[in-house]
Amino acid sequence: MPRKTRPVRLGPWIVGGGNPIRVQSMTTTDTRDAEATLRQIETLERVGCEIVRVAVPDQEAAASLGVIKKRSRIPLVADVHFDFRLALRSLEEGVDGLRINPGNIGKRANIALLAKEAKARGVPIRVGVNAGSLEKDLLASLGMSAEAMVASAKRSVELLEDVGFTDIKVSLKAYDVPTTIRAYQIFAASFDYPLHLGITEAGTKFSGAIRSACGLSVLLWHGIGDTVRVSLASNPVEEVRVGYGILRSMGLRSRGVEVVACPTCGRLEIDVEELGKQVEEALSFVEQPLKIAVMGCTVNGPGEARDADIAVVGGKDGAVLYIQGKPMAKLQKAQILERLVQEAKALVERENIEEKAPGAKEVPA
Amino acid sequence: MPRKTRPVRLGPWIVGGGNPIRVQSMTTTDTRDAEATLRQIETLERVGCEIVRVAVPDQEAAASLGVIKKRSRIPLVADVHFDFRLALRSLEEGVDGLRINPGNIGKRANIALLAKEAKARGVPIRVGVNAGSLEKDLLASLGMSAEAMVASAKRSVELLEDVGFTDIKVSLKAYDVPTTIRAYQIFAASFDYPLHLGITEAGTKFSGAIRSACGLSVLLWHGIGDTVRVSLASNPVEEVRVGYGILRSMGLRSRGVEVVACPTCGRLEIDVEELGKQVEEALSFVEQPLKIAVMGCTVNGPGEARDADIAVVGGKDGAVLYIQGKPMAKLQKAQILERLVQEAKALVERENIEEKAPGAKEVPA
Repeated sequence: MPRKTRPVRLGPWIVGGGNPIRVQSMTTTDTRDAEATLRQIETLERVGCEIVRVAVPDQEAAASLGVIKKRSRIPLVADVHFDFRLALRSLEEGVDGLRINPGNIGKRANIALLAKEAKARGVPIRVGVNAGSLEKDLLASLGMSAEAMVASAKRSVELLEDVGFTDIKVSLKAYDVPTTIRAYQIFAASFDYPLHLGITEAGTKFSGAIRSACGLSVLLWHGIGDTVRVSLASNPVEEVRVGYGILRSMGLRSRGVEVVACPTCGRLEIDVEELGKQVEEALSFVEQPLKIAVMGCTVNGPGEARDADIAVVGGKDGAVLYIQGKPMAKLQKAQILERLVQEAKALVERENIEEKAPGAKEVPA
Repeated sequence: MPRKTRPVRLGPWIVGGGNPIRVQSMTTTDTRDAEATLRQIETLERVGCEIVRVAVPDQEAAASLGVIKKRSRIPLVADVHFDFRLALRSLEEGVDGLRINPGNIGKRANIALLAKEAKARGVPIRVGVNAGSLEKDLLASLGMSAEAMVASAKRSVELLEDVGFTDIKVSLKAYDVPTTIRAYQIFAASFDYPLHLGITEAGTKFSGAIRSACGLSVLLWHGIGDTVRVSLASNPVEEVRVGYGILRSMGLRSRGVEVVACPTCGRLEIDVEELGKQVEEALSFVEQPLKIAVMGCTVNGPGEARDADIAVVGGKDGAVLYIQGKPMAKLQKAQILERLVQEAKALVERENIEEKAPGAKEVPA
């Protein structure tokens, strides 16, 4: 069961409160270059990114936000470090959300002023704690630990609460997975603010995806998490794909094609690896959830085929095609890919399959 | 805390009982071709595979096992479906372990005979339940569910216990992650046999790695799991890499280089993605655990650098090199990769860093 968090509005979405877990990413372009940034945002939106964050390192970058906001079709969050005036300027430019790092944003008075301006505009603030940039006094007393991360978040959250600001989201990211899990768990036991999940500096595309999946899945399994951002040293499109991959694996969101493919063992009758990749590629445009099984032989093939929307199971001289669990045709090897893709497209058109995830309907704030 | 399981010997390893979680894989070669299979086993061993399983679909494949066993430097497990006589033959050929699928191995009398022969040779049996191939009566009464999977495992385990055989490992694999997690959790609540973790037919390399990481990490977080096999429709070398990636992320095993790389954002001063990949590649031969941080800028860079064995943090005209947490040199962009790799190699030689994982020492059975 998901943990009950308080709903917080971010542009068109309500994050928390039992709403679908939103997938977000961050641009890698120079924010001062609005055109390049908008091109990347459009690409991200096409793969399902629902919230986009941009770095705001200086006033010139902040000045760019108005143009970006006007033309972005997904809500825009300004990521600000060190200088709270950049956050104020971001608000003036109309961003949908702010992210500040309590470890470096400076004095209490600055945060109070920020809260006042954000409240006037109905803009939420994410308190984004990062193990790599904790306040010096917390590091001194608690070390780089889950407890120090929670103390950092708590300090900023309570400061915002003191000035009457509660449109808060919180993240507590570390590179270390057990530390991250514990930080979120400790925080979630005391506060009901929606949580933005992430493992920071997770790594290169492949190893970072594994590390992120490890951390996020444990939290999601315990009902913790209202929005996710996978941090990869890679094209942010991959961050969105991995984000959906994790949510899909945990049964929390479904989007696009998922290919069930057997591990290629000595019993293999068809080239499952190649076929699996080709199917993923050929159907990458599909937005509706569609489960396709590509099975090499009859050990587990028929069982998985019954559970998939479409399946092929390798046999002696080709494969058997299953549609919605029923064997429909024998295919020769050369036909398999074409027929599979053709039937998948037909099924998508016929069914216009709806998102099956729990809580897919928006709950009002 | 890991769950306390009973120790079971498999070749040189003791699986369970608080021993290191062993990483295993399965060959994709034709087992009848002993030379090709041995070449693949050798490749797997080089990337850290600690147990290897081979498919035994017929008597000819079983006949090949003697040669493979004699020359494999890691323990060999025979994977048998449908025909228990193939399992008997595998035992005669000297395999270190057997895997049977209770859903298809046939009559009680056959399993009893198998247990007698395995016991005489000190060979453990894995009861390998797979959601795709459950017994028909269980499917009829319980559907394809965690409960049906546990019932299937329980039936075979109790049958083995009835004939005095307790060198048992168990796996309960499904494609669906929540189902798999629940199956292992339910089983672990009643039995103390060591558990072999896996998500079955997880998918192609990238999406299968994510799915496996999701399932395994939740179980490992709860102390469940004594050996892991990641099933990918890919080269089994990737299965081993993903296996270590998951265990490393969860803080349970450490092997080789891990690269902490920041997500590439608009603040980037060095090409973190390319550099991260190059470092992973250049140091892929390293077996000792070594943490390298490649950070684009000074927001979280210095913090992560302090926590890594070696790090570079991008600055205005290059990067700062950190060794064991201390800033050591300013590097120009063109120097970064070479110097980083050079310092890493020097550190590995100097330190011969020991495996830091808890329980890395073997506990006797």
